Amino acid sequence: MVLTESVSEPSQQNQSAGAAELPAPPDRFVRRHIGPNAAETREMLALLGFKELDELIAAAVPSKIRLEKKLNLPAARSEFEALAGLRKVAGENQVFRSCIGMGYYDCITPAVIQRNVLENPGWYTQYTPYQAEISQGRLEALLNFQTMVSDLTALDIANASLLDEATACAEAMTMCHRLKDDRNLFFVSETCHPQNIEVVRTRAKALGIEVVVGRHENFQFTEKVFGVLVQYPDTFGAIHDYSGFTEKAHAVGALVTVATDLLALTLIQPPGEFGADIAVGSAQRFGVPLGYGGPHAAFFATRDEFKRQMPGRLVGVSKDSRGKPALRLALGTREQHIRREKATSNICTAQALLANMASMYAVYHGPEGLKKIAQRVHALTEILTAELERLGFTVGQASRLSPSSNETGREMRQARRLSCFDTFTITLGDKRAADILKIAEVHRMNFRLIDDHTLGVSLDETTDESDVANILAVFNGDKPVSFFDEVAQPSRLQNLQAGTPALPYRQSAFLTNKVFNSYHSETEMLRYIKRLESRDLSLTASMIPLGSCTMKLNAAAEMFPISWPEFSKIHPFAPLKQTRGYQTLFQQLEDWLADITGFAGISLQPNAGAQGEYTGLLVIRAWHDSRNEPHRKVCLIPTSAHGTNPASAVMAGFKVVAVACDKDGNIDVADLRAKAEAHKQDLACLMVTYPSTHGVFESTIKEICEIIHANGGQLYMDGANMNAQVGLCRPADIGADVCHLNLHKTFCIPHGGGGPGVGPIGVAEHLVEFLPGHPVVNLGGENPIGPVAAAPWGSAGILPISWMYIAMMGADGLTEATKFAILNANYISKRLEKYFPTLYRSNGLVAHECILDLRRIVAGQSSTGVSPVENEEQAGRLRYIDVKCVTAEDVAKRLMDYGFHAPTLSWPVAGTLMVEPTESESKYELDRFCDAMIAIHAEMTAVETGAADAKNNLLKNAPHTTDMVAADNWNRPYSREQAAFPVPGLRDYKFWPAVGRIDNVFGDRNPVCTCAGMENYTV
Amino acid sequence: MVLTESVSEPSQQNQSAGAAELPAPPDRFVRRHIGPNAAETREMLALLGFKELDELIAAAVPSKIRLEKKLNLPAARSEFEALAGLRKVAGENQVFRSCIGMGYYDCITPAVIQRNVLENPGWYTQYTPYQAEISQGRLEALLNFQTMVSDLTALDIANASLLDEATACAEAMTMCHRLKDDRNLFFVSETCHPQNIEVVRTRAKALGIEVVVGRHENFQFTEKVFGVLVQYPDTFGAIHDYSGFTEKAHAVGALVTVATDLLALTLIQPPGEFGADIAVGSAQRFGVPLGYGGPHAAFFATRDEFKRQMPGRLVGVSKDSRGKPALRLALGTREQHIRREKATSNICTAQALLANMASMYAVYHGPEGLKKIAQRVHALTEILTAELERLGFTVGQASRLSPSSNETGREMRQARRLSCFDTFTITLGDKRAADILKIAEVHRMNFRLIDDHTLGVSLDETTDESDVANILAVFNGDKPVSFFDEVAQPSRLQNLQAGTPALPYRQSAFLTNKVFNSYHSETEMLRYIKRLESRDLSLTASMIPLGSCTMKLNAAAEMFPISWPEFSKIHPFAPLKQTRGYQTLFQQLEDWLADITGFAGISLQPNAGAQGEYTGLLVIRAWHDSRNEPHRKVCLIPTSAHGTNPASAVMAGFKVVAVACDKDGNIDVADLRAKAEAHKQDLACLMVTYPSTHGVFESTIKEICEIIHANGGQLYMDGANMNAQVGLCRPADIGADVCHLNLHKTFCIPHGGGGPGVGPIGVAEHLVEFLPGHPVVNLGGENPIGPVAAAPWGSAGILPISWMYIAMMGADGLTEATKFAILNANYISKRLEKYFPTLYRSNGLVAHECILDLRRIVAGQSSTGVSPVENEEQAGRLRYIDVKCVTAEDVAKRLMDYGFHAPTLSWPVAGTLMVEPTESESKYELDRFCDAMIAIHAEMTAVETGAADAKNNLLKNAPHTTDMVAADNWNRPYSREQAAFPVPGLRDYKFWPAVGRIDNVFGDRNPVCTCAGMENYTV
Repeated sequence: MVLTESVSEPSQQNQSAGAAELPAPPDRFVRRHIGPNAAETREMLALLGFKELDELIAAAVPSKIRLEKKLNLPAARSEFEALAGLRKVAGENQVFRSCIGMGYYDCITPAVIQRNVLENPGWYTQYTPYQAEISQGRLEALLNFQTMVSDLTALDIANASLLDEATACAEAMTMCHRLKDDRNLFFVSETCHPQNIEVVRTRAKALGIEVVVGRHENFQFTEKVFGVLVQYPDTFGAIHDYSGFTEKAHAVGALVTVATDLLALTLIQPPGEFGADIAVGSAQRFGVPLGYGGPHAAFFATRDEFKRQMPGRLVGVSKDSRGKPALRLALGTREQHIRREKATSNICTAQALLANMASMYAVYHGPEGLKKIAQRVHALTEILTAELERLGFTVGQASRLSPSSNETGREMRQARRLSCFDTFTITLGDKRAADILKIAEVHRMNFRLIDDHTLGVSLDETTDESDVANILAVFNGDKPVSFFDEVAQPSRLQNLQAGTPALPYRQSAFLTNKVFNSYHSETEMLRYIKRLESRDLSLTASMIPLGSCTMKLNAAAEMFPISWPEFSKIHPFAPLKQTRGYQTLFQQLEDWLADITGFAGISLQPNAGAQGEYTGLLVIRAWHDSRNEPHRKVCLIPTSAHGTNPASAVMAGFKVVAVACDKDGNIDVADLRAKAEAHKQDLACLMVTYPSTHGVFESTIKEICEIIHANGGQLYMDGANMNAQVGLCRPADIGADVCHLNLHKTFCIPHGGGGPGVGPIGVAEHLVEFLPGHPVVNLGGENPIGPVAAAPWGSAGILPISWMYIAMMGADGLTEATKFAILNANYISKRLEKYFPTLYRSNGLVAHECILDLRRIVAGQSSTGVSPVENEEQAGRLRYIDVKCVTAEDVAKRLMDYGFHAPTLSWPVAGTLMVEPTESESKYELDRFCDAMIAIHAEMTAVETGAADAKNNLLKNAPHTTDMVAADNWNRPYSREQAAFPVPGLRDYKFWPAVGRIDNVFGDRNPVCTCAGMENYTV
Repeated sequence: MVLTESVSEPSQQNQSAGAAELPAPPDRFVRRHIGPNAAETREMLALLGFKELDELIAAAVPSKIRLEKKLNLPAARSEFEALAGLRKVAGENQVFRSCIGMGYYDCITPAVIQRNVLENPGWYTQYTPYQAEISQGRLEALLNFQTMVSDLTALDIANASLLDEATACAEAMTMCHRLKDDRNLFFVSETCHPQNIEVVRTRAKALGIEVVVGRHENFQFTEKVFGVLVQYPDTFGAIHDYSGFTEKAHAVGALVTVATDLLALTLIQPPGEFGADIAVGSAQRFGVPLGYGGPHAAFFATRDEFKRQMPGRLVGVSKDSRGKPALRLALGTREQHIRREKATSNICTAQALLANMASMYAVYHGPEGLKKIAQRVHALTEILTAELERLGFTVGQASRLSPSSNETGREMRQARRLSCFDTFTITLGDKRAADILKIAEVHRMNFRLIDDHTLGVSLDETTDESDVANILAVFNGDKPVSFFDEVAQPSRLQNLQAGTPALPYRQSAFLTNKVFNSYHSETEMLRYIKRLESRDLSLTASMIPLGSCTMKLNAAAEMFPISWPEFSKIHPFAPLKQTRGYQTLFQQLEDWLADITGFAGISLQPNAGAQGEYTGLLVIRAWHDSRNEPHRKVCLIPTSAHGTNPASAVMAGFKVVAVACDKDGNIDVADLRAKAEAHKQDLACLMVTYPSTHGVFESTIKEICEIIHANGGQLYMDGANMNAQVGLCRPADIGADVCHLNLHKTFCIPHGGGGPGVGPIGVAEHLVEFLPGHPVVNLGGENPIGPVAAAPWGSAGILPISWMYIAMMGADGLTEATKFAILNANYISKRLEKYFPTLYRSNGLVAHECILDLRRIVAGQSSTGVSPVENEEQAGRLRYIDVKCVTAEDVAKRLMDYGFHAPTLSWPVAGTLMVEPTESESKYELDRFCDAMIAIHAEMTAVETGAADAKNNLLKNAPHTTDMVAADNWNRPYSREQAAFPVPGLRDYKFWPAVGRIDNVFGDRNPVCTCAGMENYTV
């Protein structure tokens, strides 16, 4: 392959037969996606000592694992063609009005939020806010989310979102279990949403927790019970008074989790006020599109006393180096990447973008606006139920269908009215549900089918009078009901109201903070959104070279389709015949991912990478069980693994056994063999990341697979580093049995500032039958494990992004991207070797990322020579300085002054930075980064040699804000310009950190996690 | 009316009969559009001494002009409802593939440009870049546009866009006329696009220029000819060799204008290389959607020697106070607001947003990419024409349909091939065009109908092989033609090529500047767009309180529909039966605007405000002509009028006579009466702005109208200040005969950083018959004046914005907006009266804007007392300082340091700032502005009293950039913090100017108007 052609000339496969004469469409997407152009590529290869890219790849990737054939994918399409093609697919979906409910409600995304958050790369391309000083915008939005949830649920503290409501229920169960770990029984109300019940069951089964599902009124508490879960309003719409039930639970020492609905909570008594310990739910209906099931932000709130056991991320208030309030992720010690197998959960990705949308929705409407929305939905529901009764239907909750004999009809109606917010059931008497649904189909409406003679109806923010009229007409045998004239008569309305006992109305105020009461004009709202955006460093400003996180281009053409109503406005439980477009998309995407990984089956359900790990391990467990080897529970994990690996293994009920790594960062094969053989009888699997988390292609990988298989285990491959494999090698060919893919890494779904993520798994033929199922929609393998996520296909609404990426890249483009990802990483490693040695290499090369060792730096180097560091080192020409005064964190913070987001900090090795540039960054940007690192090298050298003060220097005081460098007083030992403009390019354009270095310890000592803390903060 | 209800409660009209019980949808758009909430409104009214808003309005607006009834508009719809309604309207449009050509070509807007420019309020909400220091982003994009046009046309200098190609042709004619003003004949080739010919004719007629239309080959030059216009490629696709023609023109001293096509110029010899003096055209096909005719950016390029005669804006390179290169509008002395009746044209609004999109398209593709696009379109055209000939059709230009007798068929084919880029004609022989079009309709394709047996076909960037196949099938009687197999045979392709004499290929390089060769990956492109965005102050950062410019909210929901393919992808000459949605939208919008203004008829054609003025005056002229009073040509214009008024009057062929204003800024009625009576015999009209450009409701307006009518004149009302009238009074009721509306002011179309604008006119019953027509689409009055714009409905593609605004506001909402616009202006006037007196008031109040007098400031005030300035002044308690050391410009530049865009500077009165806050700004923002002005007042006082240095002070040195205030050297007499953070809020969020004060004189002395100047700039 001649390089210039591969980079700048179109691939031939997409051309007509007349190609020899007819120029191909010039705008191949691959050249938009890949950063370096042909000239840059030549220069980069020259530095590395290669003539052609394929030579480099041949040297970097072990030949024995190389894929010999081309991936079997459709020819690459241009952006224009791919969008046109996907439009056709989308056209196969039918957008019906959804009255299904069950935790998913249509809603109105305020236009100003849709355009300026969801559709704005300044909001969707950021990373998780670990580098808090350049993440103040979304940290504030997430703090608003926490405040909103805490206020509405009336609980002390809420986290910054979880994956979905069902997962949140499972997390609540495991948290309760941790708090009461001498007990083992968890009660779940049968009127919870079915997906909540089943996801809890899946989780409980793996952990050996006993789950009892039943009517909460009948449940007999014992001291075996550690917790209970109820739904409020319940899945059929009933609003139960759980106060007595809660008392009973507390009486035996059990904790109470309430799955609830934020909109309803604006009107009805919040869980915190009747004694709940935990409240969970989905924030979807706060302005987040249905998206056929996700992604949406779930919430999780609890009492202050439990905060250190709470799963998920938590934004908290602290102060910065100027003593001003500043936000950052709080209580990080709870997180999986720190605690590994002792982690409280495996959650890594959350749903930041969707949580931000939901919190912005609350900011936009304010407490009064939210209440008015709820009141109107409720009023329409009241009218609708009254009219349905007038038509002769029995309206009430399915859960109350068998009244005790002494209840009269009127009491039943009262009970219904008492307990209904926006959802209710209709008993059809002698009419058949199927007949009603047939009429509904003509009106393009979906109801919930409960049984042959019972339907469920749920209204929402988008429902108006004409919808109520349509619903009535449907139930009236397709004949209009002229009800508004009658309703309009004040006497009748008064009667209606008089006959309606009050709901357990909420008395307490909520969302009283200034932020929820200030930005109600669109102009103010827009400026608020933009102001926050300006505080976040995103891919729109510079590269975000996070090792293991693959922050590549999220192309605009990939993002467009997720805003199309045909994808965004579909309920996850809509009949399959209405979602043929989605089915086509899933099938194609699954086929493509199967080909890319070499696997026989794919499940798209896991809605985050760690969720994928957990799912994959459950599948392995189910396989062992099916072979009557349920005792196989040892999961080998190399010490270099990501913290989610052991956390997921524990969640899957496995026992973690660590495998050592050698001095080069590779798995110690001898140790592995010893451990595998020692656990021959109970070995479940090995979890391995490939290329390794140390950034190299281990040549022993095939041998490792053989050892595991030989000892009865399965090989789980963590797909975090899949970006180094696509088109070059395949997990299945290497020997893996299961692999999860991070579509938000390798396949271009944006990180959204900390989520959404999508983590499908691929499995080998023998495991296909165990792929996860779902209680509402029939999918998965023949012997499926239970569902792992609330929605059948997880975050279906954003799968078009990955579809577009693969469709526009094609086999050649994807392979090219992988090669450039490897080139870019090696280029950085090489350019910096005389300043910061790369910790691990194989054959002198890295894979798609490199670990820069900051614990020792090269002394006295300032040129950019090209001799390999080994030779120089061997020849004794390189001298090293051991770094004592400067930490890797100092370097990370100083990079902010250069306009960069730090690489992955001190992981997998303390005192290092792991750099993953991805293929999307140009040489121009890589050089800018290298120049910054080289300049920092000089700053570090000055500190280490004593030329600069050890405590008061450019690195320790970083980052520097505008008000610092423009302060009248300047008493630093370095100049303002050295602080602000250490390299000339920054004078042309610079992203400024919003705050100075944040004091984490201060904040964790006294955690404050709501806006009130921000507003009342006194330094 | 109770205020709190009006602001925070829903209007009742939109509710169902059950309203008493059913809460209305809470999210009324009016409360999103209007800034102040109920509490703020109460405080603001209290400061002004009113209890209710209506009291203030009653005091501000003369009762005799008040509209007594409510506007007759549909009930206000929510954003959700309005979008759903407009979706239905849009659904009535049918999107066909357009092969019509005629200056409009479908194209691909790169997704990264669509999302981050067209759909990004950071790019569409800025004002015209008059305040250059906070407009460097779009100034750079416009400089790129100029460079692109200059390079592609091979002419020395290009402007920053004009309204459309036809207008550009007319501007070229008048420029040539100015340069040769002793001559009066202009030749136009008959193969120009028909709209170009007709718009030129309209313009020529008013100016008394003789236009001859004919075949350029036959034209006999004489010394009467001052200029010629030819099309290249011509409207039928022919690429003529105009070199001989140009020589002949130059031989008699005539100037040559070439209307041309940027994409074709990447392949064929550019006009500058065969001697053209001017090149004009449309940049639409560089990534700007068709939009049923507009808005698109036209271009205008000429030789360096003519630059001071060139119409339109021109971006040029200069240097800033730091000596660094900086951009600003150059040669401003040519502009209409300075030269008034001596103006070179009346152009005020240009097409900045669309020019920016087109220049970004060139940045994205680069010279090679553009050339490849052109080559492919051309190659497909070659294949298509060859195949059509094989099917037996005669393919060639309509202009060559009658070959001279000695031409053979082969020569004709060669001629066709020689001269065809992407457009050609097909002679159908015995087939009827209508039959072919009927088949085409089934295939959803449009061709150009030339005559019963001739069709025109034009390909474009979006055409692919399948389209060519479809076209062939249509011409083959709906039977597929299997041509690619044949084409694919190398021998046949070689034959094809051998038989094709070369086009007059372009030899010269173009777009060699770095900017066109750097940002070809999407990541780099995105960052470039975002970097430029960060240099522009837009409404996303702060208010832009420009008097007479009405920078109100451009709501996201208003903007969504312009991206819908049903609106954006329609050719302006598509058959009307395919554009029923547009027709519905036009009809409704016209009806609504007619009701709002009180007029009988509306024309949507004028695509800018000044274009509307010109159109209105032509209509008045046509009316006088129709009454056999063609001699009525005196146009009275008050001295306070906007400079476009006299400029438009001159363009319409009128003679301008000035009318004096009195000391209060009102029209001097005595002088008016005297002038009107003096010109009784030849009075054509009065042009008047209402409320006046001095920001007050003149109570004499009705009397003024009567005087004009009594003397045989018509009243032209300039609608610039319509935002103070809507719902309160109506131009027609006041007595106007014609009025133009600036939809980009009053009706929410964003300013786009200097365009697009839309300037429809309303006319009284007797003038309806003269509303402008169009040569291609039948519209306008029964005796229409000629077209004034290229497209039948002007900038149709953005009319959905105003439709959405009116639909969502309804009659009450619009009226409420007007009231709040008046409240906001009076609030600012009041809060600042003890610092900067308002120059003109009526009844102690202003209308929707106020003129702050900076020539004298109030001494020694620092509190925010509320006593009216008059009383204090009368009581001798207010002391004034005459400002000598500080100019209004200094204040404008200093406002940038406070994060604000300056109000209108020194217009209509030198030494003042005219502030128009609009209804969309909240009290919070108004106070922020007032606080800034009060702080500046103190800074001015310090200078005037000598406490601060007269030359070296905060104002003279403003604005201050980050690198100034962070510089190691600081030798200013004030502190860095005073410079950067004069008020505390700026520490929380500040928009920083990208450059220091720009030296305009330096730049104008040596104008450099392409990127080369930027790159090679040495200080």
